[in-house]
Amino acid sequence: MSIRIREVGLDFSFEPILQRAKQDLNDTLALVRPILDQVREGGDKAVYELTEKFDRIKPEKLVYPVSGWNGKADPELVSALEKAKENIETFHKAQIPADLDVNVSGNTLGIRYTPIESVTVYAPGGKALYPSTILMGVIPAKIAGVKHIQIVTPPQKDGIPDGLYAAAKIAGADAIVTVGGAQGIAAASYGTETISRSEFVIGPGNKFVTAAKVLLSGQGVIGIDSPAGPSEVLVIADDSANPNWVAADLLSQAEHGEDSAAILCTNSMEFAKKVSEEIDKALKERPKRESIKRASIENESWILVFPNLEECVNFSNLYAPEHLEIQTKNYQELFKKIKHAGSVFLGPYSPVAMGDYISGTNHILPTAGGSRIFSSLGVLTFLKRVTYQEVTRDSLEKLYPYVKVLSEFEGLDEEHGNSVKVRLSWNGKS
Amino acid sequence: MSIRIREVGLDFSFEPILQRAKQDLNDTLALVRPILDQVREGGDKAVYELTEKFDRIKPEKLVYPVSGWNGKADPELVSALEKAKENIETFHKAQIPADLDVNVSGNTLGIRYTPIESVTVYAPGGKALYPSTILMGVIPAKIAGVKHIQIVTPPQKDGIPDGLYAAAKIAGADAIVTVGGAQGIAAASYGTETISRSEFVIGPGNKFVTAAKVLLSGQGVIGIDSPAGPSEVLVIADDSANPNWVAADLLSQAEHGEDSAAILCTNSMEFAKKVSEEIDKALKERPKRESIKRASIENESWILVFPNLEECVNFSNLYAPEHLEIQTKNYQELFKKIKHAGSVFLGPYSPVAMGDYISGTNHILPTAGGSRIFSSLGVLTFLKRVTYQEVTRDSLEKLYPYVKVLSEFEGLDEEHGNSVKVRLSWNGKS
Repeated sequence: MSIRIREVGLDFSFEPILQRAKQDLNDTLALVRPILDQVREGGDKAVYELTEKFDRIKPEKLVYPVSGWNGKADPELVSALEKAKENIETFHKAQIPADLDVNVSGNTLGIRYTPIESVTVYAPGGKALYPSTILMGVIPAKIAGVKHIQIVTPPQKDGIPDGLYAAAKIAGADAIVTVGGAQGIAAASYGTETISRSEFVIGPGNKFVTAAKVLLSGQGVIGIDSPAGPSEVLVIADDSANPNWVAADLLSQAEHGEDSAAILCTNSMEFAKKVSEEIDKALKERPKRESIKRASIENESWILVFPNLEECVNFSNLYAPEHLEIQTKNYQELFKKIKHAGSVFLGPYSPVAMGDYISGTNHILPTAGGSRIFSSLGVLTFLKRVTYQEVTRDSLEKLYPYVKVLSEFEGLDEEHGNSVKVRLSWNGKS
Repeated sequence: MSIRIREVGLDFSFEPILQRAKQDLNDTLALVRPILDQVREGGDKAVYELTEKFDRIKPEKLVYPVSGWNGKADPELVSALEKAKENIETFHKAQIPADLDVNVSGNTLGIRYTPIESVTVYAPGGKALYPSTILMGVIPAKIAGVKHIQIVTPPQKDGIPDGLYAAAKIAGADAIVTVGGAQGIAAASYGTETISRSEFVIGPGNKFVTAAKVLLSGQGVIGIDSPAGPSEVLVIADDSANPNWVAADLLSQAEHGEDSAAILCTNSMEFAKKVSEEIDKALKERPKRESIKRASIENESWILVFPNLEECVNFSNLYAPEHLEIQTKNYQELFKKIKHAGSVFLGPYSPVAMGDYISGTNHILPTAGGSRIFSSLGVLTFLKRVTYQEVTRDSLEKLYPYVKVLSEFEGLDEEHGNSVKVRLSWNGKS
């Protein structure tokens, strides 16, 4: 079976494609709830029990300060992580916002940015051990001025892999906590005897991790980044693009997991067929993770042929992809019309893998259409806007009549209105 | 009974004060769940049924376009709302962020801000009809470029009050939807035959409204502002402040509701006692809403006497108040040490009521300690950061070795790594 090609006409229904493989969390929420309670009440003891139950591992301890690392790691990996850090830092330092200070009706009004104090970056373990995600989560928090940053990650039989330690050290994290799944999120959110509590928890994870994040943020225990779902790419390409490269980019998304979605939107049926052929050829030539790639390509992915590129853009704005590539002659023009996307990759030499690893943009992005309302992860994720004002007596006097009218209408004149009036009528006696 | 005064010593436990009157949503969530399902499945019909059940009102229709308003309203109120709008606009237009464009390792990386498309501002009804909140919710969304903005508010026996219509018109909202409580939030989040679906829902409400927002955002149906709880003020004052004015400010918070908290932190027991006396006097002299004010002052409020102002600031950062007033000699110095607060009011002439109504800052703010991780409402609430990059062939070549190492370590070299390599080794044949 190949990727599905569809010519988009008036009778074409986007609904199934827009829906994508959305996680239904309802059953998982019910499973996760007692785990959260157990960790909140039992602390470390509960965490050890749950780790033995779910990971079949008995760890000696749960928290490993990064400062205690022995420094052993593959020098090539270290050098690649350091290059990635350099680019991520350059792009993210440019995001540091300036404080604001405005004169409005004679008063000074402003905004000061202050950092969240404690952050947990969840990093999936096992086969999906991604040091790159540690850089992406930790570096922006560090630049924002977060004081305590810990990595929470499932325990592994042979201890913490060197690559993970190296990434944590290079990124600037304080500690690695080896507790996975919902119990890891719970331990980081409530804190235990040995695990620090974090006020904000970010990073991708399986459905247990997502369910725990959703429940705890709903209860006001933590703040979270946008809810994570399967990864996805949408490519807009015309026949000026290289079908071999576009096929490589679609497969690079498919490589992530069976539920990943790779969508090509084009204005050329001929081009669509060429890309489909390139995918078939590649699946034979590069058999690693074949069943994962096939499942993603055959069940979650599409090539959609639209009458023109304008309609490709319209569909993309509806779909609101996590990753968007534009490989057309006029890619800058089309980009101006893009309203919703996590991160956009422009022109022939910008495959998503560049942003995943090295170019400097963040790869923690809203999925499942979340980019219609959520931002990509950045320095601002970890900064809050504190507004302030200093009112002058003169302005207080000029604006009081309006406060009087508004507070009377809202039935709050006796105290709200009075708190302004009393400052004007003050004669030294109360 | 008067407000409680406590001298803070080593044995003093802040925990009960930090906890404040936190809403336990668990029971409410269970009540709200079936209401959400009913509206999702039944649309308008369900909304009419629930409105009759909970509000005992049979509305003729549910949606009132603001353009259809007859324009009748008290001219004094209109002029006050227009002045408020002017100041809110000036402060919020200054918040429009600049797009970003950075050269990193030879590539162009950047951020473009794009608006959320549809927003609902929930406005409580009945006695707590606050036109000011409509300005605060709608104007920043309008400035951000949100296309469709609707007010959702409980139905009233005599139809939509003129003041509410006036505020909606002046703020620039598109429509008023007269459905309250959880059913109002559900109708706005799912959409019905006559009610537009919004992707983002903001604004204060009772516990049913909050529970509905939490559930729907947890399910990924909508985005929301920070969870709302009872209103609160923390005042830091020394004996240079006017005890009469400070008492007025504390009572102005108490006027909001029985669960509102008003906290004074000071370094002077003498000043503390004076403020307490002023509160007692005021409660006798200004008896409106007396039982509400008394409940808040006696059960939720405190005067805390610390050894020095530094420790007042430390406590304030722990408490993370929604509103913070600093009325001390060196208020600018103390303000520099503030890390967490919704909005800060500096000096003797900046009572909270100025920000509530007229100065131009937003009064939709994180409560219940939420300012440790959440921002005050602003233009950025409605804008998302879309990152982008354009990579050059030259940079692709220079950075490929790092992509190779990282993708190999993560087991994603065959496709992620390949998608870069294929662009470099391309010889015209696939």
